[in-house]
Amino acid sequence: MDEALVAAASVQGLTAPNPWVGCVLVLPDGRRVVGRTHPPGGPHAEADALAQVGGSATGATMYVTLEPCAHHGRTPPCADAVAAAGVRRVVVALTDPDPAVAGRGLATLRRAGVEVVEGVRRAEAARLLGPYLRQRRTGRPYVVLKMAASLDGRTAAPDASSRWITGPEARADVHRLRARSDAILVGAGTVRADDPELTVRDVPSPLPGTAYAPQRVVLGSAPPGARVRPALELSGPLDEVLDELGRRGVLQLLVEGGAQVAGAFHRAGLVDRYVLYLAPVLFGGDDARPVMAGPGAPTIGDVWRGRVDSVARLGDDIRIDLVPRAAADDPTHPPAVHDIQEALS
Amino acid sequence: MDEALVAAASVQGLTAPNPWVGCVLVLPDGRRVVGRTHPPGGPHAEADALAQVGGSATGATMYVTLEPCAHHGRTPPCADAVAAAGVRRVVVALTDPDPAVAGRGLATLRRAGVEVVEGVRRAEAARLLGPYLRQRRTGRPYVVLKMAASLDGRTAAPDASSRWITGPEARADVHRLRARSDAILVGAGTVRADDPELTVRDVPSPLPGTAYAPQRVVLGSAPPGARVRPALELSGPLDEVLDELGRRGVLQLLVEGGAQVAGAFHRAGLVDRYVLYLAPVLFGGDDARPVMAGPGAPTIGDVWRGRVDSVARLGDDIRIDLVPRAAADDPTHPPAVHDIQEALS
Repeated sequence: MDEALVAAASVQGLTAPNPWVGCVLVLPDGRRVVGRTHPPGGPHAEADALAQVGGSATGATMYVTLEPCAHHGRTPPCADAVAAAGVRRVVVALTDPDPAVAGRGLATLRRAGVEVVEGVRRAEAARLLGPYLRQRRTGRPYVVLKMAASLDGRTAAPDASSRWITGPEARADVHRLRARSDAILVGAGTVRADDPELTVRDVPSPLPGTAYAPQRVVLGSAPPGARVRPALELSGPLDEVLDELGRRGVLQLLVEGGAQVAGAFHRAGLVDRYVLYLAPVLFGGDDARPVMAGPGAPTIGDVWRGRVDSVARLGDDIRIDLVPRAAADDPTHPPAVHDIQEALS
Repeated sequence: MDEALVAAASVQGLTAPNPWVGCVLVLPDGRRVVGRTHPPGGPHAEADALAQVGGSATGATMYVTLEPCAHHGRTPPCADAVAAAGVRRVVVALTDPDPAVAGRGLATLRRAGVEVVEGVRRAEAARLLGPYLRQRRTGRPYVVLKMAASLDGRTAAPDASSRWITGPEARADVHRLRARSDAILVGAGTVRADDPELTVRDVPSPLPGTAYAPQRVVLGSAPPGARVRPALELSGPLDEVLDELGRRGVLQLLVEGGAQVAGAFHRAGLVDRYVLYLAPVLFGGDDARPVMAGPGAPTIGDVWRGRVDSVARLGDDIRIDLVPRAAADDPTHPPAVHDIQEALS
């Protein structure tokens, strides 16, 4: 199952609106075949594995991170295909909360005489699929807020001059974070000030012929000629923006700023994970641009308190992942992971 | 020698203006005796060890972290005592840059027929004794700036309401940091706002009958009745304040704030080590009190860039140690350590 989880993690960011699933098919002769969810229209993980054995897997055992689907979508139901291929036993980590599946995949398998084992590595699979589960349960994407700042919490000099203050390792990590996200959102002010491209660079897809291409979203409107174009331009209350992105099948949204947007998402309680890249830099005063703008906690009792999920050194910089305490404390809503090693450890 | 370095580290903060030294005396029968520098007026490390064997150590080997002294101060010269005790061989990590010693201790030993080995674990001893070496070379203490902030670089709410935002593990670490310091400095504004005591709590001294009691220093004047009293009140340019503290024998100065004082020490380039305690807290806006106040780098090219020396998790919080790049890059001025394990690893 760990191998299946690793396979699933490798395609996060390529499968939306579908979940990223991994499966390992173990044939009676001991051969192992790994399947992964392909982008929409392509095979699901189970079909990917079965295709590699010509659709015939008599007596095999399949380990799969999520319950096989039972409905006709863009592809035929996996549960039927698995049973038809002669698979003898299916080991599943997590049942699918999607109402179109929700136990029906397992029921289909059982009816066809396939032995089903549920719940193996369930907690790890739930952490790994956190953004998918969030979107299916609430209709909204899992929101990751990325910030890059100095150790005194600043992002640019008083004259607004800025450049990347973090080093190449942290910047490469941002590209990996973008690759795992289905959409990247910035404010119109950031588009005007920095003209970011918001593309994924130097993160090759494990699926030949595919590439990470998260939807670019601007809160407000992007000027003509902005490098972020083509982009989805949205406005209105943030919760409605999230509803709209959820309807569009975005499972994970990466919010990349600027300070006003970061502050607004944070104060609305809409952030599921904060990723801070801290550079060994000090602006050394109170006049540089802050990492969050707008009115913060008015008094000390109102201060937001989270939980540090991980701390990592990336070159000269430090990455700190912070999650709301509610998520960290609730085993049914564990914070999603962005590093498969975290899920498996 | 590692055992001697650990013994030395254990008494940092108790010995100023003298260096904290450790020694291990290995007797011909295999017995080992550990000596440590006592507070001024008490024995040096070598004398402490020799006293434990009744002053007689014929044929013994002594491992000592710093060259034995050769001059009459408050105590008689250690080099003479070591030779008189019959020690056969002395292994020294570091020669003493103090002009009253500066090789004369080793010369005294050699003249008396004692075999001398120099430079064993020299780099580690230099890191450990960084504050002492700094004060002897420049006349000024080694300056540690301590800051405690939220992950968005803030220390108190806009209404100035504050309380410890870090947890008990981080607060205990601050007391260990205070214990290692010979003086603790705050601005008069902090005294008026927070009325801190600035004492060392719950850090027992390894030397019976002694306690850590760093000199409390206020930049400006402390109101009558302030809990920081009795305190040394100093004013004037910061470099002159450091000269004065150096003259008074302060080897390590801990600057504890507030934001104006932190910004001023930082901008004057007078900080040798930054210790940041970051709590998993966000004030979430630009109106909370910043960790540093005053005019910072006016443009991005002027931003100060250091090097992360260590990152540690302390309970729910994170401690980040930052040193100037010049110190990190120069093997003759290595940043001092505050954890003996760091020096020995």
